[in-house]
Amino acid sequence: MVFPQQVIAKKRDGHALTRDEIRAFVRGATDGSWADYQLSALLMAIYLRGMTPGETADYTDAMMRSGTVADLAAVPGVKVDKHSTGGVGDKVSIPLAPMVAACGVPVPMISGRGLGHSGGTLDKLESIPGFRTDLSLAAYSAQVGRVGCALIGQTKDLAPSDKKLYALRDVTATVECIPLICGSILSKKLAEGIDALVLDVKFGRGAFMKTKDEARRLAEALVAVGRAGGKQVRAVLTAMEQPLGRAVGNALEVAESVACLRGAGPADLMEVTRELGAHMLVLGGAAGSLAAGREKLERVVADGSALAKLREIVAAQGGEVGVVDEPKRLPQARLQVALAAPRSGVVTDVDAMGVALAALRLGAGRARAEDRIDPAVGVGDLVKIGERVEAGGRLATIHANDEAALAEARTMLAAAIAIGDTAPVPVPLIAETIT
Amino acid sequence: MVFPQQVIAKKRDGHALTRDEIRAFVRGATDGSWADYQLSALLMAIYLRGMTPGETADYTDAMMRSGTVADLAAVPGVKVDKHSTGGVGDKVSIPLAPMVAACGVPVPMISGRGLGHSGGTLDKLESIPGFRTDLSLAAYSAQVGRVGCALIGQTKDLAPSDKKLYALRDVTATVECIPLICGSILSKKLAEGIDALVLDVKFGRGAFMKTKDEARRLAEALVAVGRAGGKQVRAVLTAMEQPLGRAVGNALEVAESVACLRGAGPADLMEVTRELGAHMLVLGGAAGSLAAGREKLERVVADGSALAKLREIVAAQGGEVGVVDEPKRLPQARLQVALAAPRSGVVTDVDAMGVALAALRLGAGRARAEDRIDPAVGVGDLVKIGERVEAGGRLATIHANDEAALAEARTMLAAAIAIGDTAPVPVPLIAETIT
Repeated sequence: MVFPQQVIAKKRDGHALTRDEIRAFVRGATDGSWADYQLSALLMAIYLRGMTPGETADYTDAMMRSGTVADLAAVPGVKVDKHSTGGVGDKVSIPLAPMVAACGVPVPMISGRGLGHSGGTLDKLESIPGFRTDLSLAAYSAQVGRVGCALIGQTKDLAPSDKKLYALRDVTATVECIPLICGSILSKKLAEGIDALVLDVKFGRGAFMKTKDEARRLAEALVAVGRAGGKQVRAVLTAMEQPLGRAVGNALEVAESVACLRGAGPADLMEVTRELGAHMLVLGGAAGSLAAGREKLERVVADGSALAKLREIVAAQGGEVGVVDEPKRLPQARLQVALAAPRSGVVTDVDAMGVALAALRLGAGRARAEDRIDPAVGVGDLVKIGERVEAGGRLATIHANDEAALAEARTMLAAAIAIGDTAPVPVPLIAETIT
Repeated sequence: MVFPQQVIAKKRDGHALTRDEIRAFVRGATDGSWADYQLSALLMAIYLRGMTPGETADYTDAMMRSGTVADLAAVPGVKVDKHSTGGVGDKVSIPLAPMVAACGVPVPMISGRGLGHSGGTLDKLESIPGFRTDLSLAAYSAQVGRVGCALIGQTKDLAPSDKKLYALRDVTATVECIPLICGSILSKKLAEGIDALVLDVKFGRGAFMKTKDEARRLAEALVAVGRAGGKQVRAVLTAMEQPLGRAVGNALEVAESVACLRGAGPADLMEVTRELGAHMLVLGGAAGSLAAGREKLERVVADGSALAKLREIVAAQGGEVGVVDEPKRLPQARLQVALAAPRSGVVTDVDAMGVALAALRLGAGRARAEDRIDPAVGVGDLVKIGERVEAGGRLATIHANDEAALAEARTMLAAAIAIGDTAPVPVPLIAETIT
């Protein structure tokens, strides 16, 4: 019998917990045998005292086993997923998954919803009329086998302890803690039934981790813990100072993702997508090098097979396939208004967080988990840092369904974009790879 | 508006909280506007990050004001109380309060119940038939004015936040934390309406603090916080290796207390009582020095006025006054059995904790707060370290109401007493004074 007080006291005093103690904690969170106040006291002790790599691996494993673990053994090949720590305009999963699947590597992908400034792949996909993300794990496995890719939402059977513990962390100031973040991210990913995982760990104003050093620490921990869980894992550190691509908003980002698959995606978005995809192809055994992987990905875009794969996925999940060819069938906002440049010059800044908050004000995201989002609204046609603009020219298009929100978002967006005389030194988007 | 998460995060990051933030926390504990898991996360952050003296004073003040604060302004004189951090056989309050009151210093005393190895003054007093400890604060104030002393229990209006927070600390491994201990002890004491307080901070095997250094740290914090609350405060560090006096058990300790007031108390018990009492008289303005205070206390025992004061108190609180003159009227255990010495020699050890656990087994204390105690049972006639014993002679008398408990307690008690060939070097009982 492991008593909560003893486990809490041990971590409080800076000692490493045993596997049994960690399992008792996670079981206590799942079955309610530990009180919330005991869970939160231990979470705070972990926040302040840390966890060893071994403890973090045990914690992640216990979280993963707190629910169902998907079994994709019947699907041939190395199953590879990608996970991003979240950014503004980060719709990479939507073009990436069909591209990688079109190269023959199965992509089982279970995504979350957006919260705060960060969007969620699930919300974006659901802006496609009819698209279902609530597949059962059996249907999910079958689709990965048949189509090579499934894009679904977390079922409540998947790592239920994380749902409980994340909710507690959110209200007890224990979110920003690397071992707890590792457990939360990887328990859900490992439960997908994958063999390998590529992580996009973002840093900068629009990311959870503000500096590259923080991002590197998180990436190193994630790679170590994922590997301890028996998976191949790599992490790529990418900058998140300005939004990725030119669109922030759910249907707008789906349209931009479709454009990528037609070879017309913004350069920055394509660069990140190709880089992550190349790592996935290498891990999945479909490319001998990153260069070969990038080339293969360009080919499946050029020959239309990636776009065809997206059609297949949308059809398999009940969505209106027509949107792939006619993005105008996606939900459209009633008001579509250009934000004009106040002067001529060079764009010196587009603050990702400022753009995200403007999109949130329009209704594209959730301030709280229970909020409803509006799929049609957001920001499109966004300028990028370093681009020249003329006075009165377009900096962005605001898509709104409400005049008051439009007015506020316009002010917020204008404040997020700076125009100067000289272009700033470009910051590399792909900063580092952790293997 | 002060948000719980912000306060928790601030303390988590090692910053001092403002008075308003501390008040929000204590109010949140009292009115339920903070969830238990938020309270416990902050308690753990305080445990690991500490509190400044200023924060501890603000915390104590907020706890005190979370309920009723007794008003003894109508009672003339400097009102002085004593508080002990708890020990085995520590019945000092019972002879001390009437002795000090007999010297003309009003003693308003609100006591708690025993838990675990530590006894409670309230439980001991309630072994006097009819003695009521549940007086209203109005009756308490009136009695302090009329009799010069009242010995009552905590009402639920007194520092209710402490009840809530202590219960949480008990189950989240956040008990042993000096700022939190200070708040818990002093909020209740300051709410009594006192002007001055003498603290008996015990250290050793039978005490909460195991070493003199720990006890000193706690004493210094208590003195500083009490002074910040506008009270005169002193602390005396006293050793708690063997039980204080020769009796452990509720009625047995009342009988020993009465013996003290007749001038027939054990030397160690009288020494601690006189020392604490002398400080109380100095603070209360009734003695110019500790030596003068000690002498005055000896006089009120010798002339019978302290015993008369106890009769007054017992009568005022509805107790059977006859027990003061005939202690046999106190509850008596059915089985009273001598523990015989296994060999001749010198008593080299009487482990306070071992004796306490034997008394607990007999039913003299509570393992959990909801347990009932048996007032009659316990250990009497206990030998003291350094005394000579003969083989077969009496080491103690076990008072029991149950054969099985008697047998177990006898084994426990025998293990707690060691007999050797040479007397150990005596340890001073009064170790230090913190002013």
